[in-house]
Amino acid sequence: MNPTTPTGGPVGPSRSALRPLSSSEIWIDGGYWAEKQQLNADVILEHCRTWMERIGWIGNFDRAAAGTIAADHAGIEFVDSEVYKLLEAMAWELGRQPSETLEATYLSLVERVSAAQEPDGYLHTSFGRAAQPPRYSDLEWGHELYCFGHLIQAAVARLRTGHDDLLPAVARRLADHLYDAFGPDGRPAVCGHPEVEMALVELGRATGEERYLELARLFVERRGHRTLQQIDFGREYFQDTVPVRDATTLSGHAVRALYLAAGAADVAVETGDAALLDAVRRQAAAARAARTYITGAVGSHRRDESFGQDFELPPDRAYAETCAGIASAMLDWRLLLSTGSGGHAAAMERVLLNNVLTSPREDGRAFFYANTLHQRVPGTEAGDDELAGHRAEGGGMRSPWFDVSCCPTNVARTLASVHLYFATASERGVQLHQYGDYQVRTEVAGGTVHLRVTSGYPYDGTVHVEVVEAPDRAIALAVRVPEWAAGAAELSGGEPTTLADGYLVLDRVLTPGEKISVAFPIEARVVHPDPRIDAVRGAFAVERGPLVLALESLDLPAGWDLNAVTADPASVRTTSDGAAITVEQHTPAEADWPYRAETPSPATARAEATLIPYQRWANRGPAAMRVWIPKD
Amino acid sequence: MNPTTPTGGPVGPSRSALRPLSSSEIWIDGGYWAEKQQLNADVILEHCRTWMERIGWIGNFDRAAAGTIAADHAGIEFVDSEVYKLLEAMAWELGRQPSETLEATYLSLVERVSAAQEPDGYLHTSFGRAAQPPRYSDLEWGHELYCFGHLIQAAVARLRTGHDDLLPAVARRLADHLYDAFGPDGRPAVCGHPEVEMALVELGRATGEERYLELARLFVERRGHRTLQQIDFGREYFQDTVPVRDATTLSGHAVRALYLAAGAADVAVETGDAALLDAVRRQAAAARAARTYITGAVGSHRRDESFGQDFELPPDRAYAETCAGIASAMLDWRLLLSTGSGGHAAAMERVLLNNVLTSPREDGRAFFYANTLHQRVPGTEAGDDELAGHRAEGGGMRSPWFDVSCCPTNVARTLASVHLYFATASERGVQLHQYGDYQVRTEVAGGTVHLRVTSGYPYDGTVHVEVVEAPDRAIALAVRVPEWAAGAAELSGGEPTTLADGYLVLDRVLTPGEKISVAFPIEARVVHPDPRIDAVRGAFAVERGPLVLALESLDLPAGWDLNAVTADPASVRTTSDGAAITVEQHTPAEADWPYRAETPSPATARAEATLIPYQRWANRGPAAMRVWIPKD
Repeated sequence: MNPTTPTGGPVGPSRSALRPLSSSEIWIDGGYWAEKQQLNADVILEHCRTWMERIGWIGNFDRAAAGTIAADHAGIEFVDSEVYKLLEAMAWELGRQPSETLEATYLSLVERVSAAQEPDGYLHTSFGRAAQPPRYSDLEWGHELYCFGHLIQAAVARLRTGHDDLLPAVARRLADHLYDAFGPDGRPAVCGHPEVEMALVELGRATGEERYLELARLFVERRGHRTLQQIDFGREYFQDTVPVRDATTLSGHAVRALYLAAGAADVAVETGDAALLDAVRRQAAAARAARTYITGAVGSHRRDESFGQDFELPPDRAYAETCAGIASAMLDWRLLLSTGSGGHAAAMERVLLNNVLTSPREDGRAFFYANTLHQRVPGTEAGDDELAGHRAEGGGMRSPWFDVSCCPTNVARTLASVHLYFATASERGVQLHQYGDYQVRTEVAGGTVHLRVTSGYPYDGTVHVEVVEAPDRAIALAVRVPEWAAGAAELSGGEPTTLADGYLVLDRVLTPGEKISVAFPIEARVVHPDPRIDAVRGAFAVERGPLVLALESLDLPAGWDLNAVTADPASVRTTSDGAAITVEQHTPAEADWPYRAETPSPATARAEATLIPYQRWANRGPAAMRVWIPKD
Repeated sequence: MNPTTPTGGPVGPSRSALRPLSSSEIWIDGGYWAEKQQLNADVILEHCRTWMERIGWIGNFDRAAAGTIAADHAGIEFVDSEVYKLLEAMAWELGRQPSETLEATYLSLVERVSAAQEPDGYLHTSFGRAAQPPRYSDLEWGHELYCFGHLIQAAVARLRTGHDDLLPAVARRLADHLYDAFGPDGRPAVCGHPEVEMALVELGRATGEERYLELARLFVERRGHRTLQQIDFGREYFQDTVPVRDATTLSGHAVRALYLAAGAADVAVETGDAALLDAVRRQAAAARAARTYITGAVGSHRRDESFGQDFELPPDRAYAETCAGIASAMLDWRLLLSTGSGGHAAAMERVLLNNVLTSPREDGRAFFYANTLHQRVPGTEAGDDELAGHRAEGGGMRSPWFDVSCCPTNVARTLASVHLYFATASERGVQLHQYGDYQVRTEVAGGTVHLRVTSGYPYDGTVHVEVVEAPDRAIALAVRVPEWAAGAAELSGGEPTTLADGYLVLDRVLTPGEKISVAFPIEARVVHPDPRIDAVRGAFAVERGPLVLALESLDLPAGWDLNAVTADPASVRTTSDGAAITVEQHTPAEADWPYRAETPSPATARAEATLIPYQRWANRGPAAMRVWIPKD
């Protein structure tokens, strides 16, 4: 449970306000998050691997090595990236918890990938061989550099978990090739899907090779100058209309926008480019203020998977892609490390608990790609062997796999590394950003600090911090106070404290064996939308602690129509294990036309209903569901 | 203005409750609609023709005839249909108002089309020649039969306007080929885009060839049995999951669904299949009750241009395609003729005035493809030479032409034939369905009836009917009463009357020279949405007579943000030329997160604003606009 080899986490800045920890310094040892990580280790990783074996995505590498790939490539042109995200997930998992079986599976998969690498370092199963499109002939849609980025991130995960072996070698050769092809003396172009930017910065950090950072910087600077061809969705789709440092908000394809912003933040941090970092921070803040769902999810346009305009946040048409939620957490992690501001940790908590963790079914064998906030008609349970179209409408139930299956592998790599987001350290202290059951053991000025954190989070708000080991000098222990607990958090055993940037800070000598606890009042809270969000006008949501709640049709009396339910926000109440609400059923007049001079009819029935955590909806079978509940 | 050769209109059923009139029996002679028809004749037809010459869509036929098309085809694979819709528009226009210039242009265009027909009757510029995909190799997306349908409809328009010349001959050869290819002894398949069904029934009606009806019947019966391949959007997209006679509502791609329903109605009428006709009527009624925008527009999913689920009608994400509105009017015309029920005429009025006529810019040189009901951010005026992507987001201004340009030519053929929808006849009488300035001169039992209708419609509600000529026996004059005037319509000079199926019926001898008038109270009316339409909860719309009104940002005080405006519905008032409202401006709290415990702040300013007809929005330059106004 406490391996010693790992050297870092998903982001390793050479300078930052907060220092990220490695799996040797932080580990989850029980409770809610341990269950999620174990589900990932036991089920999700293998689910992803077997699906990709079965439908030939892994076999693509074998056929590429054998020279037969042109005639027989499985899947769309960026399926390589799914294999790489799985490799990244496996690497983090192995860093968290060694396993001989998984190590063998991992190494075998890396061997197969490696065999497809060409002598000059290029590695992609869809381009460049005879009877395939030439390399870099379709930068708009080819996703070549996007795939490379994922390979490089997988290699960085391997390096940061203490192994400089085959995949890092493959990644170095690939990155060297990329530098030749697109570096200062190469083609001045960018990829249609940002991703390689952050990967290159990270590989540069992990290897010390400065050319990788230089190449990432070039990619960031080149974007926004319309070097990509026009496409149906317009160049805003891949952020090629405005240079990153001039953009005022996040727009276009949501995952592309967020990966780009994360890469730009990495470049800014490493090059000391304060203006660029500030531009990214402003964009993230603007998108958060007007382009984010209450679940932390982003992307309101299904057609082009893009951010909508400000306040265009329809719950029923929400795309709210799982990968965009993950990308959003990746960006906030970078901004948290660089600024130390608790708002970024709060945003991560919201999106991880309410968007990313909504994706996997409770058994880990099916996933949401899009995460609607309002399902009018119950969906249909997919067969275990059914490959879903990610563009199909309807949905309402999770699917085992998709023709474009970016989300399951993205969930896998996130869960395998999620503990690394829970706390950080600095010269003088430790910062606790997320809650659960975990331990932190790291070095600060004066010596080793070892803390054991326990809590019933996200269902219960009391967090206990037991000091296992501490230096005999004062250290600053920062405990994040969620915005909904501001002013109400009670710290026991820890006065005096100060509140700074979203954290209670206890600055004194800690004594081994002492217990500090902080209680956040976890009660059901009614939340109202900004009146400019037209799509949820006249409705309210309910949150309890860090969880967004939802009303699922299964919790209504038999025969009720969720589409004709209203409620009085004053009826919301906290229960021992959640929240309840008094719902009212209306019987809309049967009419041949849905617009009329009369206002709606009053309620005809009243009942009590349980509200469930949104992340758990559609786990009891097909159901209608809504996060936003109409007021009477 | 009163040609005598035409023999029919867009639909010519061999049996029906109401008999459609031809251009020799009904013509518009002034006012609002005359201006629209003249704009079409003077500007829109030529606009469409010159665009299609310029970008090579017409030239495709020349290159097909010359054998060079495979190497040089302009546009997507269904651009042939745009040329055919233009030919149909020209034919109706020539039937309405002869013009030597237009006749010459028309004949020259038909020659070029005709030259591309192959010896066996097949005619398509994208398929079947060397180096092109084989004929019927892509029924899902190839649109071959869809294009044929439009050619046939153009030929029917020529036949019904009194000319059995080259295009009808081309159409017969094409239909004969189709019968061989897909008839009882041919391939049991359907086209991915319904359209040919209604065209074949009509060609059968116009030529007396029963095989065409038989083929149409086969196409209708075959659909819904999953003969088409699975596609990304799912088979519901092209109505291939449920047989037409089993469907309970309209779903999937809106234009496809409506064209299919119209074709099925035609088949049902000609074959006396009451069950099929009833199925189509029920589907249309279900879609009208739960899947139609207040403008009469349909289609709430932009991604696949489809109907949404019941009550899923977001105003901002409305697709509300112009062509779907036209298709909806085509279906309601068929149902009106077969049932005589005024609800179908009311639906036609609503969609023509508020959806279809919103498409063309007032100068006739730019068009909306999608018709949003809520524009948050003012659009950008397109250049006169700018080809727009029909899939591009944003919009907010009309475009001169599109990569997929179905809407402008569809508007053109609709305007050229729109007078034919205004009235019908029956054995004993005449029915006035739509209002404007027009004359009807037709035969009923007992002799000729000639009526001159005048009104200031749609702005003024008084309709005058002058009897020019009438038989000396009693006839039944039916005058449609809009639903908003029910109970308030005043008829002068005409008692006693009865009200039946949406019509006031005056049943007596009419005297030449007598004047009958009916007054509908045209006042601004507040309309509330069904509470199940989540996207407009807490908002209201305003209608005045048959027009849906809108609030455009240009009518707000300088500096106001339309996105932060509310109003009290009680402040809506009728003005001499429209309607006005008292709007209230809110100053939303600047916040880093758009969901909070507090309810919105009260208004900080108040002002008067004019409401404009929705159909006229975005004619004064870029603007934000909303049909649904939030209540305070």
